[in-house]
Formats: sequence, structure tokens, C-alpha cells
Amino acid sequence: MTERVLTGDRVTGKLHLGHFIGSLQNRVALQEKYETFVLLADVQALTTHFDKPDLIRTHLREITLDYLSVGIKPERSTIFIQSMIPEIAELTVLFSMFVTVNVLRHNPTVKTESKNSGLDDMYYGFLGYPVSQAADITFCKATIVPVGDDQLPHLELARKIVRRFNELYKPVLVEPKPIVGERLIGTDGNSKMSKSLGNSITLDSTSEEVAYKIKRAKTDPARVHKNDPGHPDICPIYAYHQAFRPDEYPEIREGCEKGTLGCSACKALITSTLEQLLEPMRERRSSYAAKPKIVDDILISGTQRAREIARETMAEVREAMSLNYFG
Amino acid sequence: MTERVLTGDRVTGKLHLGHFIGSLQNRVALQEKYETFVLLADVQALTTHFDKPDLIRTHLREITLDYLSVGIKPERSTIFIQSMIPEIAELTVLFSMFVTVNVLRHNPTVKTESKNSGLDDMYYGFLGYPVSQAADITFCKATIVPVGDDQLPHLELARKIVRRFNELYKPVLVEPKPIVGERLIGTDGNSKMSKSLGNSITLDSTSEEVAYKIKRAKTDPARVHKNDPGHPDICPIYAYHQAFRPDEYPEIREGCEKGTLGCSACKALITSTLEQLLEPMRERRSSYAAKPKIVDDILISGTQRAREIARETMAEVREAMSLNYFG
Repeated sequence: MTERVLTGDRVTGKLHLGHFIGSLQNRVALQEKYETFVLLADVQALTTHFDKPDLIRTHLREITLDYLSVGIKPERSTIFIQSMIPEIAELTVLFSMFVTVNVLRHNPTVKTESKNSGLDDMYYGFLGYPVSQAADITFCKATIVPVGDDQLPHLELARKIVRRFNELYKPVLVEPKPIVGERLIGTDGNSKMSKSLGNSITLDSTSEEVAYKIKRAKTDPARVHKNDPGHPDICPIYAYHQAFRPDEYPEIREGCEKGTLGCSACKALITSTLEQLLEPMRERRSSYAAKPKIVDDILISGTQRAREIARETMAEVREAMSLNYFG
Repeated sequence: MTERVLTGDRVTGKLHLGHFIGSLQNRVALQEKYETFVLLADVQALTTHFDKPDLIRTHLREITLDYLSVGIKPERSTIFIQSMIPEIAELTVLFSMFVTVNVLRHNPTVKTESKNSGLDDMYYGFLGYPVSQAADITFCKATIVPVGDDQLPHLELARKIVRRFNELYKPVLVEPKPIVGERLIGTDGNSKMSKSLGNSITLDSTSEEVAYKIKRAKTDPARVHKNDPGHPDICPIYAYHQAFRPDEYPEIREGCEKGTLGCSACKALITSTLEQLLEPMRERRSSYAAKPKIVDDILISGTQRAREIARETMAEVREAMSLNYFG
């Protein structure tokens, strides 16, 4: 069987370096080997942002620019819009018949994300997030899903739903397997870079913004003087060296631990590395941003392509469930 | 505003006299005044029958024959299949974003029907039944929904969802109002005639079956001898006189209470009345049953008509929610 990749993002904010390390760089590499589908999850954005439709509308284009800027190629990756694939909603509704409330409320990710509201005040659609994600993955029969480690329980449920469906009806759906990306630390030292924590560097940052955020980033608090020996393992900047300068970070560790590399110099090095990464992205972004018609065409044709696949899968699903009444 | 009627049935079993009194006779009358949509709820049948797809397939045609036999006219009523209207699934998913789990689990009907399994082992789709029903009603902007009294809480939730949507976005959806039908007692004296209780007389019953079921039906246990005075208010047969012989039932009451009308004679009267009701239905049924192609055409063209309306509503919904990305 040929592999097929499904990946995507909720359309709730710009992408940042955490997304790049956790998933985007994997996608750019995977698209060269496998047919890749990239989902703009606007319906899932509604689970938390249903009262902010204009924000979703704006971010849909911004995230598309993020994709194009990191090197996702429309000729290799199908970028498409969730709300324009009715078959995903149809599969969500069908799958909701064979997942219990119990299984969903004990899903660790749903649990964590609903900590503030509690189960009772959780929106019904939020509780069903993993069901809807199973629909995203199965409509295109994805075999590989690059995810963050926090998404693993959702993927496990998607696999269960596939097995349940295939046993109940016919083996039409395909069990996906995860590729787990690395997690990137935030500039404040929090273990996860996240827009909502305000510790992220977005992919569309200017040189000035990058330099400022790195300058303000936490380091080892024990290093008061330049030559104090440092503890790289607790320093976000060292983590960025590991993530973005994979060939040089052992030297950085040595310099930090021996006190021969000061924090300012260390930060200057990573700033320059990030500039090398981000500068070509900025160029691609501004070139696409200048041609909104082309970006729209990419979305329209990607969504059409996804829709064709969705129709095929849905026809098989109907047939398997005996819902194909007229031959 | 012109009124529009939405009504329908879960495709889980043949319709019976309880459906006729509670809803079907209302529908037959309403179709003469208002545009009427009649939903074959095969997706909702899956909430409890997902492991019995062939049963749903069979009952879809049987219930259509029930409709045609009672006098629902395809030229006045649009009979359509839920699973073939993807927009209903799309609305279900969208509505699920603004209904909390709490509201659903305290819905009296969901509560009653889940008594056996409890909330935790309830299927997610079952918990969301009222959300899906709100989608059924709103996709065609129905203003009138004939329901049984047990469905009133669902309708109330549908009204809330409509108000919520219209306040959050734009006043696109229409608040439906219920028409509550009478409830028919079962042949065993249970307050509700129901297939699962085995106390029903289906609309396709033969003369022999009707006579047998009426003969076996409970009556007032105090009447041992023919001339004992009876208590009509506790007798299912008297309830059937009230329901099906609205002009003559006061005489029946008198005869029963005075002991001048014995149970056998009373049962013979109602059997004959039911025969007068059911015989023309049997004729219409067998005439349609002999032409399955015509029945299929009714379903196909009804579903096409419903789909057109659904597409129009969905376009307005997308526009209201700013999900119409390409103008």
C-alpha cells in the first residue's frame, strides 16, 4: 500500500517555531516521498472560537502563507479547507455512533484542555474533538499522521474507530500511524512553545522581532557574570541550538559549561541561525502575500482535490454500511 | 412568512396505530395547507441500531410504504432520506459547538432513554441526538414540527440553538413551534403503544392480525361477566373508540358503564372501525409495493428537492458564520 500523509492545524493563530520543529519540517520532508494532505481545520477552530468567525477567516490565509513560506509545495501537498469537505462532517456524525461518552471524557487531551471548564460545561463539539479528528484522518485514508505527543491519545482513538468500523461493516478504512515530532521549549523556559503562553516566535517575525525575543529569552539564572559556568540543559537558548544547529550544539554546550561562551554571544549565534532559517521564508511569504489570487487558487484546487478523495471514501463507507439505497 | 412542516421517523421499525394517532393523521392534514418535509431518519436510527444496517435498509422502504398508505402524497410532501443530505451532518457538527454536555445530559428524553446504560456508557451520537434533530428541523427552516410529548424537550433545545445561532451570527435560521399529537395506549394497557413493548398494531396488519390483537387486548379486569358494569377509563379498547370513533364513543361509555355492552361486542365494533381505516391503507400499500421503482423515484426526487433547500440554507449559514471564503 502506498503511504498517504494527513496533517494540519487548527485555524486559531499564526504558526511559530514550535510548529516548525514539531511538525512543519517533517511535512516538508514527507511531501517529497508521499502524497500529503494538509488540513486547515476551521471547523475544529470553532470548538473554542465559535464566537470569533472573523479571526478564523483571517488566520486561514495567514496559515496558508505560513505553509507556503516553510516550503510546503502546492504541487506536492494538497492544502484544503475542512469546512468545505461535507464528507468530514458526515463521517464525524457516523463515527459518533460507536464511541462512548466515557471514552471521550477520559481522553487525556480532552481532559487536560477542559480542566478549566469541567466536563459538564464543556461544549458537545469539544468533547467530540477526537471523533472529528478521526474523520479528518480517515476521509483521505491517511496512513501517516505527524503529530505532537499530546495528540497521541486522539490518534489512538482514531485507530480504534477504524478497527471498529472495519469489523462492524467492511474493511474500508485504514489505520493511521503517528510520527511524533519534537516539542520545542518556549522563550520563557516553559516546556512548550505556545501562542497562548506568549512565549513563541512566529514564522512571520521580522529580524527585529526575532532579535528582541531571543534577547528577552530566559537563560540559566545561575549565570550572573559572563564567565560563570552555565547549565545548558535548563536553558531555552541551548534547546534552540540543539533544534536549529544540530551540527554545532556540542561546542555550545562546552562553551556554556566552561564559561567560555557568554549568554550574549550565544544568543547572537542562535539569532543569526534563526535569521538564516526565516529569511527565505519571509521572501516566499511576501511573494505569495502579494498574489492573493494565487493563494486562493491553491486553496480552491486543493479543496477540490480533497473533495474528490472524500467522495470516493464516502461512497465506500455508504456501501459498507448499506446506506447506498439506490444501487 | 409561509409555514413549513418538518416531520419524520427513525427508521427502526414499521409504523403502527400509535404513530397514526400521534402524528401521521396530522401530517396528512397539514400537507394540504403547508409545504411538508418528511424525514426518513436513517442516521438517527444508527444511534441505537449501528450494528443492524440491513434492518435499517429494509425499514426505509417499509416506512415509505407506511407513509404512502396513510395518504401522504408525494406531490404535496417531500419524503427524503437523512443520510443523503450532507448538510444535516454539517449543521449537526456546527451546532455541536454551542451546546454544552450539561444541557444534553439533563435533557429529559435523553435521560429517560439512557436509563439503562447511564451517561458514561452512552454513545456520543446518542447524547447528541437533540443537536442532530435541531439540524433536521433547521436545514429546511421548518416552522411547524408535529411531535409526541416526549419530544418536546428536544424541540425546546432546537429553538435555543436557533436563537443562539441567530444572535451569534445573523438571523438566518427559523424557530420552529411544535404541534403535539395525542398519545395512544398500548393493547396491554401501557400508556404508550410501542413496537418494543409488543403492544402495537402495525399499519400493515392483516384483518386477522387486527382481530387477534384486539381480541387479546386488555380490558377492565373487573368485568368478569358480560353484564358487569365496566370502567372505560382504564380500558385500552375504550381509548381506541375515543381515538378512532370520535362521534360514537359517548354511547360506548354508557353501554360499558351500564353493563349493556359486553366486551366482545365492544371489541367487534372497534375491530370493524379499524378495518375501515386500514383496508384502504392496505390497498394503497399493495399498489405501491408492486411498483418498487415508483417508490424509489419518490425517495430520489424527494431527497433531491430536500437537498436543494439544504444547499440554500447551508450557503446562508456559511455566509453568516464567515465560512464563505471565496466570495
